[in-house]
Amino acid sequence: MTTSSLDVNQQLDLLKRGAVDLINEADLTTKLQSGRQLRVKLGADPTRPDLHLGHAVVLRKMRQFQDLGHKVIMLIGDFTAMIGDPSGKSKTRPPLTLEETRANAQSYLEQCALVLDMNPELLEIRYNGEWLEPMGYEDVIRLASRYTVARILERDDFTKRLQGGTPISLHELLYPLTQAYDSVALQADVELGGTDQLFNLLVGRDIQRDYGQDAQVVLTTPLLVGLDGVEKMSKSLDNYIGLTDPPEIMFAKLMKVPDALLENYFTLLTDLSTARIADLLAGHPVAAHRELARAVTGWLHPSADLEAAEERFRAVARGVIPADLPRVLVEASELNEAGQVAVARLTVLAGLATSNGEARRLIQGRGLKLDGEVLTDPQALVSLGDGLVLQKGKDKFARIEMA
Amino acid sequence: MTTSSLDVNQQLDLLKRGAVDLINEADLTTKLQSGRQLRVKLGADPTRPDLHLGHAVVLRKMRQFQDLGHKVIMLIGDFTAMIGDPSGKSKTRPPLTLEETRANAQSYLEQCALVLDMNPELLEIRYNGEWLEPMGYEDVIRLASRYTVARILERDDFTKRLQGGTPISLHELLYPLTQAYDSVALQADVELGGTDQLFNLLVGRDIQRDYGQDAQVVLTTPLLVGLDGVEKMSKSLDNYIGLTDPPEIMFAKLMKVPDALLENYFTLLTDLSTARIADLLAGHPVAAHRELARAVTGWLHPSADLEAAEERFRAVARGVIPADLPRVLVEASELNEAGQVAVARLTVLAGLATSNGEARRLIQGRGLKLDGEVLTDPQALVSLGDGLVLQKGKDKFARIEMA
Repeated sequence: MTTSSLDVNQQLDLLKRGAVDLINEADLTTKLQSGRQLRVKLGADPTRPDLHLGHAVVLRKMRQFQDLGHKVIMLIGDFTAMIGDPSGKSKTRPPLTLEETRANAQSYLEQCALVLDMNPELLEIRYNGEWLEPMGYEDVIRLASRYTVARILERDDFTKRLQGGTPISLHELLYPLTQAYDSVALQADVELGGTDQLFNLLVGRDIQRDYGQDAQVVLTTPLLVGLDGVEKMSKSLDNYIGLTDPPEIMFAKLMKVPDALLENYFTLLTDLSTARIADLLAGHPVAAHRELARAVTGWLHPSADLEAAEERFRAVARGVIPADLPRVLVEASELNEAGQVAVARLTVLAGLATSNGEARRLIQGRGLKLDGEVLTDPQALVSLGDGLVLQKGKDKFARIEMA
Repeated sequence: MTTSSLDVNQQLDLLKRGAVDLINEADLTTKLQSGRQLRVKLGADPTRPDLHLGHAVVLRKMRQFQDLGHKVIMLIGDFTAMIGDPSGKSKTRPPLTLEETRANAQSYLEQCALVLDMNPELLEIRYNGEWLEPMGYEDVIRLASRYTVARILERDDFTKRLQGGTPISLHELLYPLTQAYDSVALQADVELGGTDQLFNLLVGRDIQRDYGQDAQVVLTTPLLVGLDGVEKMSKSLDNYIGLTDPPEIMFAKLMKVPDALLENYFTLLTDLSTARIADLLAGHPVAAHRELARAVTGWLHPSADLEAAEERFRAVARGVIPADLPRVLVEASELNEAGQVAVARLTVLAGLATSNGEARRLIQGRGLKLDGEVLTDPQALVSLGDGLVLQKGKDKFARIEMA
């Protein structure tokens, strides 16, 4: 994609593709017309280092800004992550040590490199500890004085929690302000985020004005629905396609995107033109899926053999066990005296279930095969001999061997 | 008053006299029974250095704790006063420099010495900058995480402002927590305050428990109604009796306390027994006023000539101009070429009105006399010769002289 020759209207069209909120277009137009290199901020959450295609949506939008010559700023909330949720009420946000945060950030940025241009002319990586760590009580008070309680409580989730009687700790009200202050410190021209971040991003506009800066343009991208066709893509729901999934896995998962989501995936994850997308959607779904799988896999794995990935997908669909399976090594200590292990336990060891209970339910639901045979008895003991292949559903495999 | 020989029940009776809230009596009983020297906190507001009998109510309660052997802690909010109200929305709380705060605190403490025992065994003076100044962003977040938004918003004035659409800045929610944290830093056993402080004092109980301390006992005293019989005593409403008013002024003002407030003033500002107060209230009001004026003036001015003060009050009531008037020196630059000045302006210079407008209204209402003659023309010019006496109402005088 060459974008350097686009005029401002064409640039706007590109940036608006797939976007949900743009606040506001006039401000963005003015900034684009200025000819300046814009500073485009994205807040990274270093508590969740595993990226998937859901994250790729906003990262692709960041990349479009880079392709137009602008500078992307990846803001790592190392200081806020270290604090975590001090109330201890939320298990989803455990406090991290500074080392964990830095390690997560490193992993996060390595995955971003699959989508972003890592040229330092076009990329800045910053940690908010830089300006938050030196802040004192007085600075916090001054920052907090910039915003009213009523406006903060207008945030959807706060309103619902207040009405529903779910406690909101006072410090939670400070987070949106902190995030907004990050925009001041970075002198952001634009901030991107998912639609769930809209409120926080808008606080940034207000606080920047309070600090005498131009308000940042806010641009949000949709939350990608996962392979289940219902929930937002997320690792914990196992409805995701990881950015670092191997090409054959990625290809196979993309072939199973629900038909209803095809247009969405094409728009948000490929550069195909609107006209081409319409053509594909009008044609046979398998052909459309194939085009999607080739486009996305080829983008994230530029040197992958797409023909081979497709061939493997077809073979698995016919019931063939692929040759290139991940090997799982089982320690001798897992075996009983007769050299056997229960299949439920084996399923967990193979990473195909997270607990014995889940493995048992899988087997009872006839969802697990051992060397091509459907398993029925979760208590069954198996011997590890020349190597076994466990298969979950149609295309999740593990080759089991002795360590 | 000798209190060293009181048993715990008698101590409780003493401390409960005139108190409004005591949260709770069981906790206070336990603390009194322990035999320990208790740490009794009072927050001082160094933005308002002029104390009056309204402040004396809670200071007397502090003194009772001292008389029982406990240690009073005067907590000067130097750090919070320096921050003031950064939103700039409230004119009543302007930010002060550290020097102003310290100077105000000095004046505040000098006036406290009229009521408190300044023996260092029984008095500790602390400034909250000591622990707030070193607090960082992280500490503030941790403190804020201890309390929920819903509970803070239950505070009367917050509820009313939210419902009435009057903005509350976020930092205002942090003040009650800061005040509560002061109790943690001071390891307060008891905190006293006016009834308007009840909510803030109770937050202190919760936060102390969160930090692993025993909750402080909260004891509130009523807000003293001023000489107008309606509003809370305050300097700005000019319905006050200053702690440092000279004895003859104090005596005269006390003689004019509305009859309906006599019981209140006796209870809160004297050591007279309940039985004696009942006797006085059943008798002639002038005799009751005289007893009140003697008790309070004698308490705050132990070496004053109460007979002389009373005699002066009676003479003024008969229309006599007292001899010992405050002298007001008028600069030559205030005079016109004929050596004259307008009476309205003179009234302002004499401190009997705060503006020419107020002076004019006073004269139009026949409330001002010059050398015993009622003034009628605010434009009238007067010459400053041998000295004039301006009189406002029955007993406010100024002797005017050339500088």
